[in-house]
Amino acid sequence: MSLCTREDIAKLDADDPLKGFRNQFELPPGLVYLDGNSLGCLPKSTPDRLATVIREEWGRDLIRSWNTADWINAPRRVGAKIARLIGAAADEVVTVDSTSINVFKALNACLQLSGDRKVLLSERGNFPTDVYMMQGLSMLSGGRIETRLVDGEDVVAALDEDTAALLLTHVHYKTGRMRDMAAITKHAHDKGVPVIWDLSHSAGAVPVNLNGANADFAVGCGYKYLNGGPGAPAFLFAATRHQEKVFPILSGWLGHAAPFEFDDAYRPAAGIDRFQCGTPGILGTAALEAGLDVMLQAEMPALRRKSSALGDLFLRLMDERCGEFGFTPACPEDAEERGSQVSFSHEHGYAIMQAIIARGVIGDFRAPDILRFGFAPLYNSYDDVWQAVETIRAVMVERAWDDPAFARRAAVT
Amino acid sequence: MSLCTREDIAKLDADDPLKGFRNQFELPPGLVYLDGNSLGCLPKSTPDRLATVIREEWGRDLIRSWNTADWINAPRRVGAKIARLIGAAADEVVTVDSTSINVFKALNACLQLSGDRKVLLSERGNFPTDVYMMQGLSMLSGGRIETRLVDGEDVVAALDEDTAALLLTHVHYKTGRMRDMAAITKHAHDKGVPVIWDLSHSAGAVPVNLNGANADFAVGCGYKYLNGGPGAPAFLFAATRHQEKVFPILSGWLGHAAPFEFDDAYRPAAGIDRFQCGTPGILGTAALEAGLDVMLQAEMPALRRKSSALGDLFLRLMDERCGEFGFTPACPEDAEERGSQVSFSHEHGYAIMQAIIARGVIGDFRAPDILRFGFAPLYNSYDDVWQAVETIRAVMVERAWDDPAFARRAAVT
Repeated sequence: MSLCTREDIAKLDADDPLKGFRNQFELPPGLVYLDGNSLGCLPKSTPDRLATVIREEWGRDLIRSWNTADWINAPRRVGAKIARLIGAAADEVVTVDSTSINVFKALNACLQLSGDRKVLLSERGNFPTDVYMMQGLSMLSGGRIETRLVDGEDVVAALDEDTAALLLTHVHYKTGRMRDMAAITKHAHDKGVPVIWDLSHSAGAVPVNLNGANADFAVGCGYKYLNGGPGAPAFLFAATRHQEKVFPILSGWLGHAAPFEFDDAYRPAAGIDRFQCGTPGILGTAALEAGLDVMLQAEMPALRRKSSALGDLFLRLMDERCGEFGFTPACPEDAEERGSQVSFSHEHGYAIMQAIIARGVIGDFRAPDILRFGFAPLYNSYDDVWQAVETIRAVMVERAWDDPAFARRAAVT
Repeated sequence: MSLCTREDIAKLDADDPLKGFRNQFELPPGLVYLDGNSLGCLPKSTPDRLATVIREEWGRDLIRSWNTADWINAPRRVGAKIARLIGAAADEVVTVDSTSINVFKALNACLQLSGDRKVLLSERGNFPTDVYMMQGLSMLSGGRIETRLVDGEDVVAALDEDTAALLLTHVHYKTGRMRDMAAITKHAHDKGVPVIWDLSHSAGAVPVNLNGANADFAVGCGYKYLNGGPGAPAFLFAATRHQEKVFPILSGWLGHAAPFEFDDAYRPAAGIDRFQCGTPGILGTAALEAGLDVMLQAEMPALRRKSSALGDLFLRLMDERCGEFGFTPACPEDAEERGSQVSFSHEHGYAIMQAIIARGVIGDFRAPDILRFGFAPLYNSYDDVWQAVETIRAVMVERAWDDPAFARRAAVT
């Protein structure tokens, strides 16, 4: 295979069936943004949508908008749009709270389904909030409920008759490794264990078929690939077969069967609605809906093909053009096993990331030594990948990372 | 006392020291809005503030805004502004999650402070979500933790050595009755019971002095008197003396001591930060901050004087002009005992409220028979009160409420 050239790249972009979507996003000039898996870009349609919500629905129609603008059904309406991306039925998904809070709900749901089982199982190095919510629940139980973490490859073997829930991230936030949802779910069910899938790095990024995998519960994030804006509401999936069996521990008024009766006694709403809790954030939900409305114009197989190709290209170019600089791929090289990102470990990873950010290429650093680059096939181009690798090359050739300005401090993403 | 005339009203408005604030809000022409205690009006400054957050901070600066726009500190920065309204220190308040979720956090905090005590105490007819969250926690404990509801006047007598927490709303959502925070807190402390005050109908509406009352925990709502927009983030207060003693059960990553170290083990952040959980909704938090920035230009004593006067006027006019129509005040007649609202019971309450809403006067119906009118002294005028009562009078004189269009269906607020 001959070395890839920028002319090859230009042809890839020219032939990209999704290239028209790039113009639906605000992309700051001069920036190569490979961090849509931390915060997705702003769709061009979002500001006007939000202006309508703010000026007309809130400002003009005020409280009446709970009915006239259907705010009250926004969590279900937007949840149903997410359902189309993750292989769920419309009445199995609701946008609500944060991913963390929804993990807590799903863990409690599994405990109720699991009888006397006491162990919450996950993998070491899972996204921290998932593991932290398990630890909080263990603390709340006074130690009766146990949090157990094992190495990723040992998760299936660790399933046993004490396991009340298995909580796994579908696409790992650092390595991008994608789990086989159907196979693991089946292994867990064989042991009587319900599974919670964290789809934060999957929804809108890779094909997900929750019902095809016979999944139990899932949670996910609205502000990454779904382009819902900073701190967008999260979502919760509960399989239809489980919904009525679970008492929602976070039993807020909007999960009540008749919230406006103002009864003293909590009665869970039918179905997925019982997992609602407090009053939904309407501005955040509206922005998330605008992001989804762009994404739902595309077909997931096309998104996946492009995202895999972007990742393959990044890996190839890093090998061809940065091979001598000590980067080690930290993601699967096979696109089939990889989410919509690539990552590399490097001993100077933090400083290198700061140096390329200073040159307008934005990825993420993840402790201790990971450089992470996410691909949003709606707005990232093959040329973005080319520019990113060329910038890394320049930073390494010039040793630009070796500058006190880029020394490690608290990172924020 | 001679009957009140519209000329008297005009003089009250002309002499109102807060009248200049009305122009800082978008008030739909022709509407008399007495429902700021369900959803506060849109400050004129909010749309531009949000446009900056959306177009510049999100759209242009993207992930960097967590640092450059200080998104990461927004919950603390906005919490500190709320602290000024409720007699708290800046580092005792954080905006986070919903009121419901924060009730759950505060209940768990009290349980940790209360040793082996098992009873969560509140009053019958408290705002439902408070009571529902107690019930969820009882369910989670498998019945070990007990929810106990007594009549409002019996709450103090019900405090005993089994009581782990007392959860009360400071200003009752239906009756507007305001509790004596300092006296009740002292009674509870005498029995070793920490108190959680729900300030949803207090913050920004009446003077609150949490530290003056030696309060333990408080929660409250951003979308009512604080004018933070539909579903705005809620807030949580934890007294400094308790913060380090409590393990936050909803232990999300942003409550971790070092969230960006991505450790597997949860370590609570110092102080109030440990009550943060997931990623904060930045759009909602920004709107809440814009609302607070208007309110903080006013002095609470002036707000309170006007709000009391608006309520007194409403009660007087209802007596003078609607005395024959069967309305019974459901709020304290003494302004000292009343929050920033009045309410009346009437057997046709639902239909009457629908009929006056159809004529452009917006209040709330609250089951089973309560008409509720809230006063936001920043934007409500004495003439609003005059128009509201005249509209009620007209609806009663004409029996306009007796129309199938106004028959009861599910209400939404």
